[in-house]
Amino acid sequence: MTIKKHYQNLVQRLEEIARLNGIMDTLGWDQEVMMPIGASETRSKQIAALAGVIHERATDPVLGDCLSALKDEISDELGEIERCNIREAQRSYELETRIPKRLVQELAELSSRGQGIWVTARQENNFADFAPVIKRFLKLKTEWAQYVSPDFLRYDANIDLFERGMTMATITPIFERLKDELIPMIHIIQHHAHQPDTSFLQGHFALNKQEALAKKISRDMGFNFEQGRIDVSVHPFCGGSHPTDVRITTRYKTSNFVESLYSVIHETGHALYEQGRPYEMGDVPASESLTMGLHESQSLFWERMIAQGKPFCFHYFETIRAIFPDSFRSVSADLFYRAINVCKPDFIRVEADEITYPLHIILRYEIEKGLFENSLQVDDLPQIWNELMKEYLGIQPPSDTLGVLQDSHWSGGAFGYFPSYTLGAMYACQFYNTLLREQPNTEKNIAKGNFAPIKAWLNEKIHSQGRLYSTEELVWRVTGEMLTPNYFIDYLKNKYSQIYGVKFS
Amino acid sequence: MTIKKHYQNLVQRLEEIARLNGIMDTLGWDQEVMMPIGASETRSKQIAALAGVIHERATDPVLGDCLSALKDEISDELGEIERCNIREAQRSYELETRIPKRLVQELAELSSRGQGIWVTARQENNFADFAPVIKRFLKLKTEWAQYVSPDFLRYDANIDLFERGMTMATITPIFERLKDELIPMIHIIQHHAHQPDTSFLQGHFALNKQEALAKKISRDMGFNFEQGRIDVSVHPFCGGSHPTDVRITTRYKTSNFVESLYSVIHETGHALYEQGRPYEMGDVPASESLTMGLHESQSLFWERMIAQGKPFCFHYFETIRAIFPDSFRSVSADLFYRAINVCKPDFIRVEADEITYPLHIILRYEIEKGLFENSLQVDDLPQIWNELMKEYLGIQPPSDTLGVLQDSHWSGGAFGYFPSYTLGAMYACQFYNTLLREQPNTEKNIAKGNFAPIKAWLNEKIHSQGRLYSTEELVWRVTGEMLTPNYFIDYLKNKYSQIYGVKFS
Repeated sequence: MTIKKHYQNLVQRLEEIARLNGIMDTLGWDQEVMMPIGASETRSKQIAALAGVIHERATDPVLGDCLSALKDEISDELGEIERCNIREAQRSYELETRIPKRLVQELAELSSRGQGIWVTARQENNFADFAPVIKRFLKLKTEWAQYVSPDFLRYDANIDLFERGMTMATITPIFERLKDELIPMIHIIQHHAHQPDTSFLQGHFALNKQEALAKKISRDMGFNFEQGRIDVSVHPFCGGSHPTDVRITTRYKTSNFVESLYSVIHETGHALYEQGRPYEMGDVPASESLTMGLHESQSLFWERMIAQGKPFCFHYFETIRAIFPDSFRSVSADLFYRAINVCKPDFIRVEADEITYPLHIILRYEIEKGLFENSLQVDDLPQIWNELMKEYLGIQPPSDTLGVLQDSHWSGGAFGYFPSYTLGAMYACQFYNTLLREQPNTEKNIAKGNFAPIKAWLNEKIHSQGRLYSTEELVWRVTGEMLTPNYFIDYLKNKYSQIYGVKFS
Repeated sequence: MTIKKHYQNLVQRLEEIARLNGIMDTLGWDQEVMMPIGASETRSKQIAALAGVIHERATDPVLGDCLSALKDEISDELGEIERCNIREAQRSYELETRIPKRLVQELAELSSRGQGIWVTARQENNFADFAPVIKRFLKLKTEWAQYVSPDFLRYDANIDLFERGMTMATITPIFERLKDELIPMIHIIQHHAHQPDTSFLQGHFALNKQEALAKKISRDMGFNFEQGRIDVSVHPFCGGSHPTDVRITTRYKTSNFVESLYSVIHETGHALYEQGRPYEMGDVPASESLTMGLHESQSLFWERMIAQGKPFCFHYFETIRAIFPDSFRSVSADLFYRAINVCKPDFIRVEADEITYPLHIILRYEIEKGLFENSLQVDDLPQIWNELMKEYLGIQPPSDTLGVLQDSHWSGGAFGYFPSYTLGAMYACQFYNTLLREQPNTEKNIAKGNFAPIKAWLNEKIHSQGRLYSTEELVWRVTGEMLTPNYFIDYLKNKYSQIYGVKFS
């Protein structure tokens, strides 16, 4: 066979797998948003059947042969996209085939069982019941790392699954720098006499009004409702099966509209990335989104860099006041801006503000690192957790439920995922800085609700690039620099010194 | 291998296919109810990928070997359910494997193309453009019949696909009898001086009230919302992926609430059949629903035998009047009952009442029969259609759009489907008659809104029987008789002589 033929054969196989995965994503969305509660056992069986088919296709030896044939004959006939598809397919094939079936099954079984154990342990504030799950995962994930990336440190192999190319060698010094800067900032803010008034954010906000507002702003940002939808689920997420079918969810509380509004903005950031993927390339790896951190950079770009900024708050304030006149009668745009940017150490990561959030992440990163390096023991985690919380945020959780047991990640074996959140925050800030340089009118545009140039810039620079470059290279191509925490630190210092009227060294 | 092993192997394969088919059903529902419009091309590709997998599994030679092994050794080790699963699997395997791939592809291609041609031809009232599609289908479906059931008459083989065991030899005399009885009835009714007042059924009916009413009645009938849902789509249908996940749809018009209410009742009838299937047997053929006609008998049982009956109308009338007081201020329960049972010949099948409906079906049956027997020519269909409409219903469509082009069935090659609608109506009536005999309190129960004994009877006698018996045998087991049109004719005569105050001979 010629290279072209091998390549066509490869693409056909990859597209089939991608489409079956798309179906899996639709089932996942349906399960969270639409499925009747009594169908959960049925759905598990359906998902298992489809997962079996996908696994069979992804590990098909004929796919392996096809990849070998292409690997041996890299030629000028193949362009950048083709080479990317081959490279990505090779990586996926290795990930799928290098791990013994026994280990795959044991991990799947532990994920499923671990979830239930964690739910109960969290409810009952009983870490001891959950500890064996973590221990077992560490053992299996260590073994897994040796099969997948024998040359990597164990924790690096786990990080690489979510944030390809990223290692402790890069992350640790950046996180150390963040600690050095953020801990004193938080201390200063916390001990400052004047705290912004946030009382007006609590009240009664009719759900249909919240929904209309969230949809309006999502549409303004550029979410394409002809290729997507917004629904309600217990936990907000961005799902869907393809750039033409992107589905985000949120949840509405009558007592607080900011939470759901900003979660819609966050998920719309993810959604714009998905809708902007270069699917004209076909349903192939090159058209897919990059790492978890880069995805998070897109949601945080819109949520924090734009929607928590002054121009955005000032632009939408009159709209918000018109919708909820009772709550905002005697509030100014500036007060609203300050209220949604309040910095306050709290126990729960997902509710944290943009200054304290990185410390929640760093704490988890240090624990995971210590566990994989055997410098920490699982049984000591509650104590270590609470000590680090005290050291970083000055507060101590009253229970493990509000401490070490709060996140679901470890119950499913997702070690190495947490750093992506803060890497995303730094990417977002670095991207925003480049945008301001390249489009000096950006803040004026935001102040007018004109997001089209921003979306176009993200589409061109990031979304349409698919997987052609590594995250590292993409950041460099977009910003002209490697990842640096400087922009993030400067941004936080400028913004919060102004909000709190303090000076940070 | 032992028989038990072969059988376990078979079940595993059948359950995988059933679960993948369940996923396909979820995708179908999603496409009609949830999918963003821009995702249609994506969805087609996903469906094609999954259909390819299902076809591969359903025609797997290893499945064939497994079936052969079981066929050769029918033994006492296997019970009724096991033998049913083997029999059904054998039939499906033959249906899937007997037809040459070329013919499968040509039929699929023509179905997809035919749909588009029909839509345009109907819009433009241009039968000539659609005629070649019918001609080609007749040729392919004749060829198909020879592969699938070489011993059957061609049209019988097509009928058998939807209504297994039913042939022209059974249908023709029954339909002749219906013609003899119904045509004069319609004539008498149409020329009767007094027609029921239906004007109050038109008005303004708020959608949220309609929805609440429809859901209430569906729940009263026994629809289990923990294993199902009701949504909105362009055309009402009953879908979903499993007895634990049954999804019905309707559409609401503000000008008329009866249409959507009775469509919800109709689809709930289908849904109760699906929810009542014996899925504790596993995801195997024995647990599936029987023929199209039997399914239709369940929807018509609730829609016509129950919900268009006097006890039902009288029971819900006060509820309806309380919800829509403006429309029903000066209307009585009896007037409402008469209005929803008006008999009036019209051009469109799907809007027909229960007396004229069978004639729409018989007309189509006679045309299909004539086409397969070569006694009718496709080019003559518009003329034949209009002549038969005049003869059976006394009216002539002003255009082919309202005549021969009105139904989508032929555009997808579904020849032999139409008889099921009227077979279903007759089964429904025959079942209802048996129920009245076995549970003499039935009408009193309906008058109190107590449907539990009725649902329990249907569950026991029909739904829980899955595919253990043929439709013919099931009808016999339930009613003690073979299918007969007598109950249906007597029912119509009694009911409409009372409504119109006339005597039918």
